[in-house]
Amino acid sequence: MCDICVTQAVKERMLSRRSFFRGAAATAAGVAAGSVFQAPAALAQGHSAVEDLTHELHEGFPTFFGEQQFFFDQKFTYAKDKFNLAEFRVNEHTGTHIDAPLHFSADGMSVAEIPVGNLVVPLCIVDIAAKAEDNPDAQLTPDDLKAWIATHGEIPANACVAMHSGWGRHVATERFRNTGADDMGHYPGFHVEAAQMLLETQAGSIGVDTLSLDHGMSPDFATHYAWLPSGRFGIECLANLDKLPPVGATLVVGAPKHRGGTGGPARVIALI
Amino acid sequence: MCDICVTQAVKERMLSRRSFFRGAAATAAGVAAGSVFQAPAALAQGHSAVEDLTHELHEGFPTFFGEQQFFFDQKFTYAKDKFNLAEFRVNEHTGTHIDAPLHFSADGMSVAEIPVGNLVVPLCIVDIAAKAEDNPDAQLTPDDLKAWIATHGEIPANACVAMHSGWGRHVATERFRNTGADDMGHYPGFHVEAAQMLLETQAGSIGVDTLSLDHGMSPDFATHYAWLPSGRFGIECLANLDKLPPVGATLVVGAPKHRGGTGGPARVIALI
Repeated sequence: MCDICVTQAVKERMLSRRSFFRGAAATAAGVAAGSVFQAPAALAQGHSAVEDLTHELHEGFPTFFGEQQFFFDQKFTYAKDKFNLAEFRVNEHTGTHIDAPLHFSADGMSVAEIPVGNLVVPLCIVDIAAKAEDNPDAQLTPDDLKAWIATHGEIPANACVAMHSGWGRHVATERFRNTGADDMGHYPGFHVEAAQMLLETQAGSIGVDTLSLDHGMSPDFATHYAWLPSGRFGIECLANLDKLPPVGATLVVGAPKHRGGTGGPARVIALI
Repeated sequence: MCDICVTQAVKERMLSRRSFFRGAAATAAGVAAGSVFQAPAALAQGHSAVEDLTHELHEGFPTFFGEQQFFFDQKFTYAKDKFNLAEFRVNEHTGTHIDAPLHFSADGMSVAEIPVGNLVVPLCIVDIAAKAEDNPDAQLTPDDLKAWIATHGEIPANACVAMHSGWGRHVATERFRNTGADDMGHYPGFHVEAAQMLLETQAGSIGVDTLSLDHGMSPDFATHYAWLPSGRFGIECLANLDKLPPVGATLVVGAPKHRGGTGGPARVIALI
């Protein structure tokens, strides 16, 4: 499929949802992330291991709309040219990637403008895998957050609160997007009320192991609109959350840094 | 310039150098990087600050060949669509980026295959800014390495050895590429003998604050061919090396993870 055809296909699908976008109220309150970095306590205390939270990106990587969004073009080969070199073309919201505030706001921070101190942060993992196993439309709710806080304490400053739904293990199968007869994706996400609750904490980002901050059958991207315009960011398609403790790891978000970017494929690494 | 035109332009310039590539002997010895991660001592001891070693990427970012290599295409705008989204197209070797072993070898590791443990490593900074100030063709030599080791001790396991030439501050001007009347770039790099010396150590990567691991006027990419086929990787266009200590920081290399990639724009962060 050529560039124009892909664009057209994406546009058509987006247009069919535009009425929902128009109806959604972007929550523009919230506190913009600070520019002064304070090292997370766990980083100061030291870490002894590393885990990769990034899926390998390839041309068949599942996408929100189901269309190919990563294109790899080998320009030089070692056999012929004595070196290998490629170009790639990618929709910013592909693979393990960042949603910058600008993605769902008129003039929020681009991915290049997120302070580096907000990219090295405490990682809080909220495990909803059990209920997601029974119900792919499950959401991370305020009750899940309250239970996590009751066990592990308050959300640390700038923390990334990540939903572990068990969906990372489905990345190579149709189950990851899990399209139903209704043509909607069926996978877990953050309930808008959980996002709103986190706006009252010092959390700086939310992350999911699925294709979207909102659960797949969201009609209105309510969580995106509640969270991103506040100056906070999101991470989608995280891998290996099942290998991490619920608290104590430090997340290093290797976000891309292209000018004006609304997000982009990232290398996300946990220090344990 | 359209896709095909850019490709053609790059090809023509590469072809003019092909005789050098053909003549170069790829040093295929060296020890492949291990897959078992051992936490750098400094990471285990803890860090208290963060520094971004990544330049902002944009369409005018300077490139090795002088041609544009990053293309940004806004597909949706908040004003019209109630969300922002772009695609971008990029030559893998653009901006602050990784050279994977595969870049200069027939079947070396792709960027996706570099073990994550090799991406969180001790950072050793060798400062040659004084001699580069006087001579843009200066190279980091074995003597520079010997002086560093005499002062700071042996190169730690998996370390990244980075050349600080002062070139990072030139990134927004013609001085960064510094093309001479000979149509060659004039900026510092690693002397091939320094790379060969590091192959005898436990270093896992080398980094530069210039456009190339080799100095700009290299006729044969000798350092690329000495280093990358050994299974080690490189980082080019590093920023802010002047803000770091010569030893003690931990480097987190947010390398991209696309299948078969020979490298790619990376978010590189230092923990201090």
